[in-house]
Amino acid sequence: MTSLTLYFTPGTCAQAVRIALEEAQAPYTLVRVDFASQQQRSPEYLAVNPKGRVPALVTEHGTLTETPALLAYVAQRFADARLAPADPFGFARMQEFHSYLASTVHIAHAHRPRASRWADEPEAQAAMQRKVPANMTECFTLIERHYLGDGPWVLGEQYSVADGYLFTVASWLKSDGVDIAQFPKVHAHSQRMAQRPAVQRALA
Amino acid sequence: MTSLTLYFTPGTCAQAVRIALEEAQAPYTLVRVDFASQQQRSPEYLAVNPKGRVPALVTEHGTLTETPALLAYVAQRFADARLAPADPFGFARMQEFHSYLASTVHIAHAHRPRASRWADEPEAQAAMQRKVPANMTECFTLIERHYLGDGPWVLGEQYSVADGYLFTVASWLKSDGVDIAQFPKVHAHSQRMAQRPAVQRALA
Ligand SMILES: N[C@@H](CCC(=O)N[C@@H](CS)C(=O)NCC(=O)O)C(=O)O
Ligand SMILES: N[C@@H](CCC(=O)N[C@@H](CS)C(=O)NCC(=O)O)C(=O)O
Repeated sequence: MTSLTLYFTPGTCAQAVRIALEEAQAPYTLVRVDFASQQQRSPEYLAVNPKGRVPALVTEHGTLTETPALLAYVAQRFADARLAPADPFGFARMQEFHSYLASTVHIAHAHRPRASRWADEPEAQAAMQRKVPANMTECFTLIERHYLGDGPWVLGEQYSVADGYLFTVASWLKSDGVDIAQFPKVHAHSQRMAQRPAVQRALA
Repeated sequence: MTSLTLYFTPGTCAQAVRIALEEAQAPYTLVRVDFASQQQRSPEYLAVNPKGRVPALVTEHGTLTETPALLAYVAQRFADARLAPADPFGFARMQEFHSYLASTVHIAHAHRPRASRWADEPEAQAAMQRKVPANMTECFTLIERHYLGDGPWVLGEQYSVADGYLFTVASWLKSDGVDIAQFPKVHAHSQRMAQRPAVQRALA
């Protein structure tokens, strides 16, 4: 099987995809995109992903972007690793969780480092940043109550690509000024994740 | 097969799911959620979807939310209707498009009607609203250039659930102060969609 290439920046949502590839023991090449030098906006990188964001995954059929799409793709491509439920309803629940993280939780967080996307005035950006802790708290309260059951994983007994995604987004709580210990199930989940060899390789 | 129940508000992203169900000729019951009376925040509706948003789809296995998850679920459940590519890469491209609409384009739009989600101060909300036309223009420029090819559909020759989603999000351009005619492929796509009997039933 042809190797995949992951465009990646440490600490970003691309980490969720790297964890999935490590869990799948997939052959892949890692290309680091340096945000400090704005490499995500360079012509070279825009030729890979015109959105100027990570992650991007180059496959033999073309390039794919968007974390939820990549997580489902990795799980389906490396089906033997059993990183997604096989039944349609279980798969849909996983997708629901991915979509919530991408379209609500990631966005709640992004209003701190990327407030300039949504308003030009510095005062407006500061107003958005002030609301980030409350919004992240609301999101994680919902995750704690409505998504995490008795565990140990997001989908219950079966570990899935959703776990690396939750782990990654939860790692932003600290810089957002929210104490993860308020959410005991999320907290325990992050600690459990940190023990996994694939996660340790993905963070290395 | 048991019937599905779709919680729906006209004009919202839930319309994309209704179009998918109509295209699939799926048996379903429609429950209208009235935003004018804030029904989405009533205890009754929060028991269906604790996020207080539409769409929500009740199935015999439980309730699902999040437009991208529901679109893929409808396509997979009613596989005979061929509303999604069968090959893994094609399916991933569709998912990529759904995720981009949900996490970037829908969000760019939501800063107009729902600015209060991300800042409390009226001036900050007004600043976000001012930036909506520019952000929607940027998103649709990218869709026009990088997603829509020679058509007639988002994924090329094959109609898919992605088409109803694009059609729905594109219908917000007018109220966002952006002229759809700037994007000839998107514009032609919306006109083509409006001709489909399933779309006409979904808008009725
Ligand atoms: N919806 C996309 C969002 C991707 C995204 O926003 N990535 C961030 C890092 S977490 C990024 O590349 N930001 C760079 C920038 O905004 O310049 C996804 O889920 O993959
Ligand atoms: N990520 C969700 C977003 C759902 C969403 O924001 N729905 C809007 C309508 S387009 C809503 O219910 N808004 C009601 C509110 O904010 O009170 C999805 O894609 O389904």
